[in-house]
Amino acid sequence: MKHITSDQNPQIKQLRMLRERPARQRDRILLDGVHLCQAWLQHHGQPECAVVAQGRLEQSDIAAILALIGASRILCVPDVLFSRLSEVESHQGILFVAARPVPALPDLVSENAVWLDRIQDPGNLGTLIRTAAAAGIRRLFLSRGTASAWSPKALRAGQGGHFVVTLHEEIMPETLLPRLAVPLAATTLEQARSLYDGALPQQCVWVFGNEGQGVDPALLQAAGLRIRIPHEQDRVESLNVAVAAALCLFEQRRQHGAVG
Amino acid sequence: MKHITSDQNPQIKQLRMLRERPARQRDRILLDGVHLCQAWLQHHGQPECAVVAQGRLEQSDIAAILALIGASRILCVPDVLFSRLSEVESHQGILFVAARPVPALPDLVSENAVWLDRIQDPGNLGTLIRTAAAAGIRRLFLSRGTASAWSPKALRAGQGGHFVVTLHEEIMPETLLPRLAVPLAATTLEQARSLYDGALPQQCVWVFGNEGQGVDPALLQAAGLRIRIPHEQDRVESLNVAVAAALCLFEQRRQHGAVG
Repeated sequence: MKHITSDQNPQIKQLRMLRERPARQRDRILLDGVHLCQAWLQHHGQPECAVVAQGRLEQSDIAAILALIGASRILCVPDVLFSRLSEVESHQGILFVAARPVPALPDLVSENAVWLDRIQDPGNLGTLIRTAAAAGIRRLFLSRGTASAWSPKALRAGQGGHFVVTLHEEIMPETLLPRLAVPLAATTLEQARSLYDGALPQQCVWVFGNEGQGVDPALLQAAGLRIRIPHEQDRVESLNVAVAAALCLFEQRRQHGAVG
Repeated sequence: MKHITSDQNPQIKQLRMLRERPARQRDRILLDGVHLCQAWLQHHGQPECAVVAQGRLEQSDIAAILALIGASRILCVPDVLFSRLSEVESHQGILFVAARPVPALPDLVSENAVWLDRIQDPGNLGTLIRTAAAAGIRRLFLSRGTASAWSPKALRAGQGGHFVVTLHEEIMPETLLPRLAVPLAATTLEQARSLYDGALPQQCVWVFGNEGQGVDPALLQAAGLRIRIPHEQDRVESLNVAVAAALCLFEQRRQHGAVG
């Protein structure tokens, strides 16, 4: 374990940069708090480094985490310095720096999956991941221009969903479209059939679009299935994107027997 | 129209207080931006006062709003002073101060309705209102302890839903329970039937509970219908409350014929 006390230490400066300007170091992410660090260890293995607040070294849950990490990867810092690194107001005294997961794209996509097209709000994004995982989705594609899946806000809204699915970020339509071996289904208000009017395919790739603009016209064009969710449109223009996704995914589950 | 230039003017100080400590003046709300002010005028009438940034006086949408308001209710302030009153970073130069709506409770509740029990997150609350309105709900009850329905964040997430429903805030269970003439339906994971297993009543009061703790045990006790939403519980513990509400309300709509 390495002890650092100075604010000006280069590693500390780099960490602060990662917190304040995550876009500059897109290959690295911060995992802040006991739950996220535990989940990372369980699903992804060792972090690049673990930062711990000195005052929490003896705390049992934190000691248990540190016991699983190579000592050379642990940085111990004074509590006051830790506070400046953590995003969380009442921080838990531990955070990980880890390599952003970049899973290999499958050659063929033949399972039920979700494609998020330029979702902007990290809370919506996290809720979409949580909801998809709850509906049994195992793989999500995130178009370039979507918010970072691993930002603190998206992780918080994800409630653990990030760790039970495979997330492919920075997807370009021309890369993914040729790999689809199941229909592409897009939600839209125009030239679309009702979600409840007839059978949904057992497997498809559902695409849910940007909060303001909806699904990219090129993807809409490619979609074999255009779905609208009937609602009181004269009173509320549209549904929140995570709500719309939930309605589609759970209606598909209902049709294919998930009543239990 | 009254022109104010000083930061220290008592009306301006009161406005700033309303923005910074809304809990101190629960009988008043702020509506920030062109859309919200238009919606207020259309659905609730005159505000207590309108504050406009001097530089926007001639802008057509803002001039149209001001033309509908008694001149004695309009405060015109320098743009820089307006910026300090608005919650919104790129503000639109107009805001209303209005009396918080306190609609009378119906003696008997015999329609399909929603009861929000101590929902904490204003984004969730706004999304719940938007979703309920989209599903055809006309009346929502908010238990005491729920976030303010009229906060800027809840209004933003509501996307206009606030103006097409009746919102009863500060509800106490002992006041509302005796008025229910339709079944009370609560979502919970324990001793509950699946949402998809059998018919839902055409009219009921749906209660959705606190993000962490769920529905108040006293309300659960009173619920004639306990509903769970089957999902991959070994992977994700629970659903976001706005997502859960959407699934219940739209499944009920589906069962009662909203396929069109």
